[in-house]
Amino acid sequence: MDELRDIEGLLRAGDGFVLAAVDPASTPGFRGGKKRGVAALAAGAVELAELQEKLYASGLSGDGRRVLLVLQAMDTAGKGGIVGHVVGSVNPYGVHIVAFKAPTAEEREHDFLWRIRRQLPTAGMLGVFDRSHYEDVLVQRVRQLSSPDVIEERYDLIVDFERELVAAGTTVIKVMLHISPEEQRARLEARLDDPSKHWKFNPGDLDDRALWPDFMTAYQLAIQRTATAAAPWYVVPADRKWYARVAVQQLLIEALRGFGQAWPAADYDVARQRARLAAE
Amino acid sequence: MDELRDIEGLLRAGDGFVLAAVDPASTPGFRGGKKRGVAALAAGAVELAELQEKLYASGLSGDGRRVLLVLQAMDTAGKGGIVGHVVGSVNPYGVHIVAFKAPTAEEREHDFLWRIRRQLPTAGMLGVFDRSHYEDVLVQRVRQLSSPDVIEERYDLIVDFERELVAAGTTVIKVMLHISPEEQRARLEARLDDPSKHWKFNPGDLDDRALWPDFMTAYQLAIQRTATAAAPWYVVPADRKWYARVAVQQLLIEALRGFGQAWPAADYDVARQRARLAAE
Repeated sequence: MDELRDIEGLLRAGDGFVLAAVDPASTPGFRGGKKRGVAALAAGAVELAELQEKLYASGLSGDGRRVLLVLQAMDTAGKGGIVGHVVGSVNPYGVHIVAFKAPTAEEREHDFLWRIRRQLPTAGMLGVFDRSHYEDVLVQRVRQLSSPDVIEERYDLIVDFERELVAAGTTVIKVMLHISPEEQRARLEARLDDPSKHWKFNPGDLDDRALWPDFMTAYQLAIQRTATAAAPWYVVPADRKWYARVAVQQLLIEALRGFGQAWPAADYDVARQRARLAAE
Repeated sequence: MDELRDIEGLLRAGDGFVLAAVDPASTPGFRGGKKRGVAALAAGAVELAELQEKLYASGLSGDGRRVLLVLQAMDTAGKGGIVGHVVGSVNPYGVHIVAFKAPTAEEREHDFLWRIRRQLPTAGMLGVFDRSHYEDVLVQRVRQLSSPDVIEERYDLIVDFERELVAAGTTVIKVMLHISPEEQRARLEARLDDPSKHWKFNPGDLDDRALWPDFMTAYQLAIQRTATAAAPWYVVPADRKWYARVAVQQLLIEALRGFGQAWPAADYDVARQRARLAAE
């Protein structure tokens, strides 16, 4: 795609990353507006589908690699749209989507990574977490559901946990969809104005909204403490839905291209099977 | 859709159903060829996506209804295409797809419905079984992996099991994708001719193919013994992929239309929330 330039490098949170310096309305690495963005998304869907099928086929043939896409964001930022429009364009068999809600009573009896470990993608799969173990250092911090010491310890536990995942063959792609409070206001108003969207609105969304600066601080800290070379964070400007979708799609495409997977060779004698079929 | 006429009634296996009388190349209830079929599928995708979203939203609001689509077929008949092109057009959050393989050691320690019960769709969900408990009266019968008495008993157990599902709010739609051996031959040859499809071929497919008449007998018996008013079987001619997709899509659409679900009403005061947002 001519429009795309180094999305991976531009969006990766590196040393000295400052969330407040990221403009949620910007479109880093993309030349053009919505119309070209929508076209780029459609073209990318074809490539992503083929790459994902190679990943899946390779997984069946003994290649242990897999991908985990972690999505974190304020409400209305577009996690659902990423799942529907980016992940939704690949073969559903190869995708494992998990939406993590507030922990259940059973989940609370275990350490915070317990429920995460149970949902990790297996070989050849694309796992997608809509919210994740990061809730345990984001909302838990903002609402003071855990002590500062516990939160501190969790950053380190997360880094260790993700290092372990990477060592076992998982490519971890962590994405924060970054919207502005003004854009969130517009999206919440749109939900309140449309009866077909009332079920997507929750008064609790406004409670979180009132704590916006605290959430941004929690994101800044979480990204700072857990962005590693092995499991990087990408902060994706998300005021423009089309851009966020193109960008996340591109992160997946670049990761899978890097695998360099070919179609698995037959583990049977093709000529012999063709002869069997012909001889019926 | 003008092209579509009573797919549900035409494909439902009723009293005196005879599988051998169904032409796999026919297109019951559809007027037109592939071009109109592809257009109908695209139009249906929009309606199905909205109906499924209403199902999902209603599930979150206390409506216990859900759908289970059971797909059974000989190899290459197009189960994967149904999942990709029909189910794949709705929001992935609302879909639970399970591909049942040969039972594992743990699964074999339990009764044949144990692994099935663990994967049933919850309220608001569309569950899709790619193979199912019917394998236990199909391949198990053909390959004599269970005694005739056990198979006989399973038909009754299945009828009871599905009656229980329906009573608990599940709409059960059982589909046999019906291809001809000639069409299967062409599809198997195509897989052998294309290195990017070698991973989809398994020499065991040819072993099953050699037992075609036995499989058809097993399907005939299974359908005869387990097609009930509560949990009907639909035999979908599948030599034309576009038709099979349109037909299964239509079965889902008709079932969901029958639910007559509206968008759930807000369980909060919309005006009050709008005022909160405006007062910031």
